[in-house]
Amino acid sequence: MTKRFDVLVIGAGPGGYIASIRAAQLGFSVGCVEKWKTPRGEPALGGTCLNVGCIPSKALLESSENYERVVRKLGEHGIVAQQVTVDVAKMLARKDRIVAKMTGGIATLFKKNKIEWLQGHGRFVSGGDVIKIEVTGDAGAQTVEAKHVIIATGSKARRLAGIEVDNVVIADNEGALSFDSVPKRLGVIGAGVIGLELGSVWRRLGAQVTLLEALPDFLPAADHAVSKEAWKLFTREQGLDIRLGVRILGAKRSGKGVTVDYEDDQGRQSLECDRLIVSVGRVPNTDGLGLEAVGLSVDARGFIEVDEHCRTKVPNVYAIGDVVRGPMLAHKAEDEGVMVAERIAGQAGHVNYDAIPWVIYTAPEIAWVGKTEQQLKSEGVEYRSGRFPFSINGRALGQGEVAGFVKILADARTDRVLGVHIVGTHASELIAEATMAMEFSASSEDIARICHPHPSLSEAVREAALAVDRRALNM
Amino acid sequence: MTKRFDVLVIGAGPGGYIASIRAAQLGFSVGCVEKWKTPRGEPALGGTCLNVGCIPSKALLESSENYERVVRKLGEHGIVAQQVTVDVAKMLARKDRIVAKMTGGIATLFKKNKIEWLQGHGRFVSGGDVIKIEVTGDAGAQTVEAKHVIIATGSKARRLAGIEVDNVVIADNEGALSFDSVPKRLGVIGAGVIGLELGSVWRRLGAQVTLLEALPDFLPAADHAVSKEAWKLFTREQGLDIRLGVRILGAKRSGKGVTVDYEDDQGRQSLECDRLIVSVGRVPNTDGLGLEAVGLSVDARGFIEVDEHCRTKVPNVYAIGDVVRGPMLAHKAEDEGVMVAERIAGQAGHVNYDAIPWVIYTAPEIAWVGKTEQQLKSEGVEYRSGRFPFSINGRALGQGEVAGFVKILADARTDRVLGVHIVGTHASELIAEATMAMEFSASSEDIARICHPHPSLSEAVREAALAVDRRALNM
Repeated sequence: MTKRFDVLVIGAGPGGYIASIRAAQLGFSVGCVEKWKTPRGEPALGGTCLNVGCIPSKALLESSENYERVVRKLGEHGIVAQQVTVDVAKMLARKDRIVAKMTGGIATLFKKNKIEWLQGHGRFVSGGDVIKIEVTGDAGAQTVEAKHVIIATGSKARRLAGIEVDNVVIADNEGALSFDSVPKRLGVIGAGVIGLELGSVWRRLGAQVTLLEALPDFLPAADHAVSKEAWKLFTREQGLDIRLGVRILGAKRSGKGVTVDYEDDQGRQSLECDRLIVSVGRVPNTDGLGLEAVGLSVDARGFIEVDEHCRTKVPNVYAIGDVVRGPMLAHKAEDEGVMVAERIAGQAGHVNYDAIPWVIYTAPEIAWVGKTEQQLKSEGVEYRSGRFPFSINGRALGQGEVAGFVKILADARTDRVLGVHIVGTHASELIAEATMAMEFSASSEDIARICHPHPSLSEAVREAALAVDRRALNM
Repeated sequence: MTKRFDVLVIGAGPGGYIASIRAAQLGFSVGCVEKWKTPRGEPALGGTCLNVGCIPSKALLESSENYERVVRKLGEHGIVAQQVTVDVAKMLARKDRIVAKMTGGIATLFKKNKIEWLQGHGRFVSGGDVIKIEVTGDAGAQTVEAKHVIIATGSKARRLAGIEVDNVVIADNEGALSFDSVPKRLGVIGAGVIGLELGSVWRRLGAQVTLLEALPDFLPAADHAVSKEAWKLFTREQGLDIRLGVRILGAKRSGKGVTVDYEDDQGRQSLECDRLIVSVGRVPNTDGLGLEAVGLSVDARGFIEVDEHCRTKVPNVYAIGDVVRGPMLAHKAEDEGVMVAERIAGQAGHVNYDAIPWVIYTAPEIAWVGKTEQQLKSEGVEYRSGRFPFSINGRALGQGEVAGFVKILADARTDRVLGVHIVGTHASELIAEATMAMEFSASSEDIARICHPHPSLSEAVREAALAVDRRALNM
């Protein structure tokens, strides 16, 4: 007998697995199609984020930060360690254990919520009130039926013509999490979020890192004050060699390493490195999805078109996460998954796209929510700005992490907070308060009036809010 | 000519220095009386908090956490360090540099805001529309006049009869920040905030620590679920030996160490240790203040009586911080300082005493805001409770800091958040979001609907909010 589900989700990354759980909580019968396999050939839930994205990269960031701390920072505390060595295999094994725990956790949640995991690749066969989907896995193909389908197929690393990724010497985000040793010279094509995070991991472990970026500006999506501070910290203090405005001509294996040919305004250049990471953005995953069978297609950039509630033009087909417009962020995908499940149930789920925090997990971290100063300027909005540096925050001094600042932008007339921009230690956590403030349409005065614990990094958020009104207390 | 100020503040701790700055911002002429001297005899601003409290203790917490991490936790990351040694003098010197930077920062702020620092001890001479205060310092005594006086004299360590604190072998909070070596056996009388924080510092550096606590319950002010978790972590996992319900009989120097005699339900006991910390609470500082000259006195516990706006019964005399009712927390004192300065200026400054966060800087940290479950029970409030453990939070796993949880209590009928309780890594920062939520009278549903960055510890706050409604997504 053909299996029939109320809701079928294609993809078990953060968007898909959360959509599945929320749909199951709401009483639907739920199936979730996922074909991911670990390098050992075992099926796994969690998608890119848990297997080769957010989770493993954060594990390595922590490990590499620990290493750098021991080697470079503990001396000032009076702590002396001799002969510090790093066992990369053991570091990677820790990362793999964390990934296995998290992906195994989803499998447990699926059992608990009675969600059926359909292992294999999902393809639309036909549409209508009951949609038919073919799932092709190791055991062959089966066709299942569903009243509602949520496409949550995510994204994959963009390829560059003429550069073959083998994930050993030339790697994308996946291979760059598993280099078997610390490369002496690491090249990175693309100085965006992934390139900076992974480049930083290997730099801390001892690699000499060169990033080649096509854009003429560094981190242009961030508030320019943040980009400028980050540029200073990453290049001058940490020694990342970031070259902007270059045009990549190609990359070739040479001996044990790689030669990258590129052009900059001085002419043709080449970079010799032992390993190369290619991180030039991500593209939506729709290969072999059979969208045409239900009357759907992708736009010029490969995305599935949806409205603000993630509805496609087919009434019972939804799409969420990296495969649709908006930032490619796991938590944006999750919130879309919750929204869609609730909408299918007739509830009023929604996503406030104006209050989705961005985080870049470098050290120090970068996080923001709301508008940047350059956006406000280009929109002609009158604003006031307040800024407070961590260098005079007691907790940051105690922790020895004094780089960066908090910057708050507020409407000049109403004082409503329009954007909060943080570069500094634990920015990824500090942004939660700012996001909540924006959801409550807080004024900078509101933040300034709320009691913040002393000593804490969050006091810098309050002081930045006070600085909007030119009455910072500790500056 | 006699100096006359619009506002005279007695005490330059967090309450006093912030009150001074806010008053100066509002256009008043301000003097601030402070007699503190460093061990080297140099006058210093900042009071207990900056000189021998929050700031130096957090510096040592960071140093000692770093040491413990290197010795016990880096192995799992594949990082191996041989012969780890700690140079206590260097560690203390780092702490002293941070303290000097912070206290020097206040001196700079005083100059910038044209606040006159009157070095010496302040004493009321007479009251009226113009109050006279005598300030006695190294250069002799002078009498100054002020239209408004803010008493911000803070608190000092409570003494125990029969135990003489020399701050070398038997120490209060001040001496315990400056032990010249790691004691082999450290005794601590009092397992409250200060005892736990300082006991933990020296435990991490290698001391075997025994805490003797008079109360029968551990951390009774915290939510009992938090106290229970903290007890388990501190005693079983970290090896703190905490003995509750003891009665201290006395402590005597014996050879190079100390013998503490006490009684428990088994009878008379004694504890031999190399150093002893006495941390049995703090008492308000009003010695020699001459309160009677303006018609004021202290209550049975030594506090100056004030209303919710920190007004004493004398119209132009205010008192803030540790010298008045309410929690002895630096940020509570600061907010009272701002309120009073604004009230003197005819503004509507206020402090929301229901939304003052508490933090205990152990590892993991403990933080809360609002009511505990036991308070709600005793008040007969109907509530719902949600809880989420860090052990299944991706960021906590990446950081290797998986102890503890977030617990949220919400009104059963309205869903308004009544209390948020966190025991876990970076609780001191996570509580900022919770405090903002409470200030905005958020429901648990509000927190559950707000986008939180992935991966972050703050996701545990959201999941706890979802758990209130029994719909946690990752549990």
